[in-house]
Amino acid sequence: MSEIDAAWSRLKAAGVAAKARRIAALFDAEPDRLARLSVSAAGLKLDLSKQPWSLADLDTALGLARAAGVEARRSALFAGEIVNASEGRPALHMALRAPAGADFRADGKPVSAEVEATRAKIKAFAAKVCAGPTRAIVHIGIGGSDLGPRLIWEALKPLDPKIELRFAANVDPNELAQALTGLDPATTLVVVVSKTFTTLETLTNAETARAWLRAGLGPDADSHLVAVSAAPDKAQAFGVPADQVFAFWDWVGGRYSLWSAVGLSCAVALGYEVFEQLLAGAAAMDAHFASARLEANAPVLLALAHVFNRNGLGRPTRAVVPYAQRLGLFADFLQQLEMESNGKRVDAAGRPVAHATAAAVFGDAGTNGQHAFFQMLHQGTDVIPVDILAVREASEGDPAAQKKLLANAIAQAEALMVGRTEADVRAELEAKGLAAAEIDALAPQRTFPGDRPTAFLLMDRLTPRALGALIALYEHKVFVEGVLWGINSFDQWGVELGKSLATRVLGELEGGPAGAHDPSTAALIAQLR
Amino acid sequence: MSEIDAAWSRLKAAGVAAKARRIAALFDAEPDRLARLSVSAAGLKLDLSKQPWSLADLDTALGLARAAGVEARRSALFAGEIVNASEGRPALHMALRAPAGADFRADGKPVSAEVEATRAKIKAFAAKVCAGPTRAIVHIGIGGSDLGPRLIWEALKPLDPKIELRFAANVDPNELAQALTGLDPATTLVVVVSKTFTTLETLTNAETARAWLRAGLGPDADSHLVAVSAAPDKAQAFGVPADQVFAFWDWVGGRYSLWSAVGLSCAVALGYEVFEQLLAGAAAMDAHFASARLEANAPVLLALAHVFNRNGLGRPTRAVVPYAQRLGLFADFLQQLEMESNGKRVDAAGRPVAHATAAAVFGDAGTNGQHAFFQMLHQGTDVIPVDILAVREASEGDPAAQKKLLANAIAQAEALMVGRTEADVRAELEAKGLAAAEIDALAPQRTFPGDRPTAFLLMDRLTPRALGALIALYEHKVFVEGVLWGINSFDQWGVELGKSLATRVLGELEGGPAGAHDPSTAALIAQLR
Repeated sequence: MSEIDAAWSRLKAAGVAAKARRIAALFDAEPDRLARLSVSAAGLKLDLSKQPWSLADLDTALGLARAAGVEARRSALFAGEIVNASEGRPALHMALRAPAGADFRADGKPVSAEVEATRAKIKAFAAKVCAGPTRAIVHIGIGGSDLGPRLIWEALKPLDPKIELRFAANVDPNELAQALTGLDPATTLVVVVSKTFTTLETLTNAETARAWLRAGLGPDADSHLVAVSAAPDKAQAFGVPADQVFAFWDWVGGRYSLWSAVGLSCAVALGYEVFEQLLAGAAAMDAHFASARLEANAPVLLALAHVFNRNGLGRPTRAVVPYAQRLGLFADFLQQLEMESNGKRVDAAGRPVAHATAAAVFGDAGTNGQHAFFQMLHQGTDVIPVDILAVREASEGDPAAQKKLLANAIAQAEALMVGRTEADVRAELEAKGLAAAEIDALAPQRTFPGDRPTAFLLMDRLTPRALGALIALYEHKVFVEGVLWGINSFDQWGVELGKSLATRVLGELEGGPAGAHDPSTAALIAQLR
Repeated sequence: MSEIDAAWSRLKAAGVAAKARRIAALFDAEPDRLARLSVSAAGLKLDLSKQPWSLADLDTALGLARAAGVEARRSALFAGEIVNASEGRPALHMALRAPAGADFRADGKPVSAEVEATRAKIKAFAAKVCAGPTRAIVHIGIGGSDLGPRLIWEALKPLDPKIELRFAANVDPNELAQALTGLDPATTLVVVVSKTFTTLETLTNAETARAWLRAGLGPDADSHLVAVSAAPDKAQAFGVPADQVFAFWDWVGGRYSLWSAVGLSCAVALGYEVFEQLLAGAAAMDAHFASARLEANAPVLLALAHVFNRNGLGRPTRAVVPYAQRLGLFADFLQQLEMESNGKRVDAAGRPVAHATAAAVFGDAGTNGQHAFFQMLHQGTDVIPVDILAVREASEGDPAAQKKLLANAIAQAEALMVGRTEADVRAELEAKGLAAAEIDALAPQRTFPGDRPTAFLLMDRLTPRALGALIALYEHKVFVEGVLWGINSFDQWGVELGKSLATRVLGELEGGPAGAHDPSTAALIAQLR
């Protein structure tokens, strides 16, 4: 058996053993448990002690990380080697947020000067726009050109922003119609973000928005267009003035691109210094990830905890619950980051992966989720591990309410782990004087199995810096998981088939000749022609 | 073996057999497949032919429904019997949307007159508010008092509403602060929705909102308060004028309550006739569910398809993708409806359930989801069934964009089922002239296994009526699943433990004496005190 296969076998055996014991009991058996399973990085505090692994299991998991070559792959990532083999590209999003003077190289070619020049251009543009009449930005992009900026804006926007930022991603014409409603073209910028400048949804919306500008402004309209693209010629051909086209590069994947000019709308609407702090927070996490030894490395430990649940204990789903309304989109962002990066079934060499890969991720802000899906987290038939995020100080509003929010975050993690025995419930119901028959009927319903794991992540305040560190933590976690599973986290071939079939179906919906389809698809096309 | 156990065994055996064949092949083997697996109800068209069951499996599943007593339980539901045994209550949300003159009885007691009187009160109130100075409503509620109204508003709101509706659910003070920003107390109503009028989050926000009104309006402030509660005395004690307190009843569960006065904010902001149409659509689905035979009953068939995936094929997760931006919250709504209703591990008699219950539900509007988690739907290691919703005509905007949206909905369902073989990919790459080594490296990455099931639901337009029918379809689907699993879909004991522990932790965060906790919880409390 190869070293990596043996390491996987040990991890899976550890998972089987973990099923036979309870998390809470590990605290008694392991006095240094909390200390060894707590780690701080770039201002974030991560507590992985309410996870199902013992400290011996942690060592087993670290053994897997070493056998999989996490350290060597990490070096390759930072060195700008071609870690995205199927597309022949490095994945160098760290270069985008590196401090001035860094020297990142993409497949040997220096890129840091270009990055800094683009940053300077963004900064100057932001200053110019802020000094001018602009009151709104409509940001048009989808997927990696949308979810990151949307998350940043919701997390950091002022209550009453000087420049309002709106988003339109969907080809459903409703979203852009909503975004444009009430805006004045004379005080609006339209920022079109597409790596290829050919994305169906983005171009469809960009054309409608351009028509809206032209109808309102005539010959001045195109000066309100801004583009972010790795295909600047196409953006100019669309009508965007050359000095308002911002570059990004093929060594940046869409879902890792918010640190580039893709974040331009945020840099303008939030202020460039906010954007700079966001980059600095991510850079601090990069420095931690690159240098910390594996056993004290936050992205590595988080990846190992998730993989222990996914592959050791066979848990296909994970919930993410930020106790911060401003992070309400974080689970949506992670759906893309994790499921698009690691929802793969062949390894980098094209062989079927021997292990289950990405878990399905869902979630919502706490406490809202407590009134929706938490019933199932506590009493469902399946165990769903939860990442809980908490922020010590509120960004605004009543500090007493913030205390209630934090109490809920802590209590949920405790409740999920400790549960409540039927004996406890019976004792309470007896103390309340219920009849025996009532107690028999109610007690099983009010019993909680417990032993449901949480990862607890704490930050002091939701600053741009902390947000940058948080996102980078999960980016690197995803990378480490990809290394363990042996997959390429940076391609996304799974989106291609639907795109090509959509082109064919669209031709038929628009009246072209009917193609060959199964009877169900043919009937749908016939109904919608 | 009991009849129901035998029926379950047959279903599970059918699931095992289904794994050995492909969905697409069933269309050849079963010429009447599409006809038998298509059903129309209350204006919605449901196509379940791209599911993994054969027509023989459908019969097996229908046998399970009969063995579980779906027909008798359905009768009990509509008759207002105590189907929510652990709380000793009927579940009579159908009474809330019944046409005038209906005669629903909750545990024998007539309720329809009371329902109609409340409807008349809502209608009169809506007319009064619309004729007055109100320009905004801040709706405060959480869970069942929030998700339904939020879904309705996003789905049906005008682009430029005369009365703007904003929501605050979270105890995180940020959400209410955002909701109040920019509003004038003189033209704002605050609607507080809480069944018990004791919900922590709702009362915390209601107090802050009341203080905001009182600071702006002095003695007039309380006339801007409206309440919806089953505890009207508490609402009046809070300061709400008696004629602005709207009742609802303990035979309505929170997550089934949007049809009651919980929908008041929507009835006012959208207009009462819109609310009435919403009720009518749900009533049409009720009539269908109550009377259609099982093999042509949309909620029954949808439940059976989901259960065939969940229990026959062991699939713990389901995605929901509405190709309509206005239904962007539908997956969030379903998370509550499905996971809170059926995320249970003991049956109504308190015995452990023998089957896996609710699947974890997640999703986002298409096409946005295609650029996020669809990679994993197509090429992940696990099969995740998908419910796809599509709307033929756009509510607004460019019809050409709407066609692109529909083409994507249809194409995704097709792509998920048919996939793409490695031989096909190789042929295409050879035709493009790629070298053999490149083809070897790329072909497995670009191969799609297919055979991934979808349920396709089509409506003509997103009218209030269609939306009401859609929600009622899923409500009844959840009920049928609960009957199959033998669980009570109408209680939610799993939310209690976290609530009681939060009270204890809050006391400690506010400086009370430290309690007994595991070391991790104790450390979190110490850090956040």
